[in-house]
Amino acid sequence: MKVKILRLGHRKKRDKRLTTHVALIARAFGADEVIICGERDDSLIKTVKDVVKRWGGPFEISYSKNWKKTLNDLADNYTIVHLTMYGVPFEKALNKLKGKNLVVIVGSEKVPSDVYKLADYNLSVTNQPHSEAGALAVFLYELFSGKKKRFKDYKIKIKPSKRGKKVIKK
Amino acid sequence: MKVKILRLGHRKKRDKRLTTHVALIARAFGADEVIICGERDDSLIKTVKDVVKRWGGPFEISYSKNWKKTLNDLADNYTIVHLTMYGVPFEKALNKLKGKNLVVIVGSEKVPSDVYKLADYNLSVTNQPHSEAGALAVFLYELFSGKKKRFKDYKIKIKPSKRGKKVIKK
Repeated sequence: MKVKILRLGHRKKRDKRLTTHVALIARAFGADEVIICGERDDSLIKTVKDVVKRWGGPFEISYSKNWKKTLNDLADNYTIVHLTMYGVPFEKALNKLKGKNLVVIVGSEKVPSDVYKLADYNLSVTNQPHSEAGALAVFLYELFSGKKKRFKDYKIKIKPSKRGKKVIKK
Repeated sequence: MKVKILRLGHRKKRDKRLTTHVALIARAFGADEVIICGERDDSLIKTVKDVVKRWGGPFEISYSKNWKKTLNDLADNYTIVHLTMYGVPFEKALNKLKGKNLVVIVGSEKVPSDVYKLADYNLSVTNQPHSEAGALAVFLYELFSGKKKRFKDYKIKIKPSKRGKKVIKK
């Protein structure tokens, strides 16, 4: 089972923080890779690679200048899920998706109508307006049934504590 | 059971989109109110009020210039939860929190150390770096066991569909 997140329509100036959050959510909640589409943004990629170096992996980040080609290339081996507030409740599809290779598409403001057609599943995490970051986090958390990924090759990790901050260096 | 979200350290320029996402996540996942602390930002408050007008409520958004006073005022009747990557896994506390009046604190970049002391629970949604938006969404989703809030007084709502967008006007 491989899970790749495809972030559509990144705009370097406007979306930097939100796309960074999407990438870090992808990593923290167990996806294998995030593919950034839209404007090329090397500093974003560096930020995420730096997190992987310090906090561990494996986790990949890459850039695609042609999301449609990327999706078509993956379509043979991956089920394509598009998270959208217009879709059917993700809970209904979850059992069918567990254990499969998935590409999970998360859009920015405007999603091309082709995406709705290319996706095997258009799924909503509530049908209310909120956040692609929130939707992705809940979807991945439920996909992996709350099971935490064990990261390897980290330099630092957190020791959970009731008060304050405890960081362990390797 | 009342659930209020307290967004700490909002910076008008840098955090506008992320704080908007936090507020919309609060609404979509069933909280009653979001309290914005940090820089006063009337356009943010207007954006969220406009969403409530169109998509329904009840949901409140307010501003506090003194988060400590706000927390102290609420402390008698609310259990204070602080979401932080340094905390203990939220899953451990969830059953104790269900059905209670809660204030859920979500920080921005720098969280004052007092917050860790004032909180009844410092809880993590994974101990990895990611996003306050993602953490809040997963926490609220699990707090309400995936049960969707029914919004009232909406002008539009979505009819979930397998492809495309269906919006119903009231």
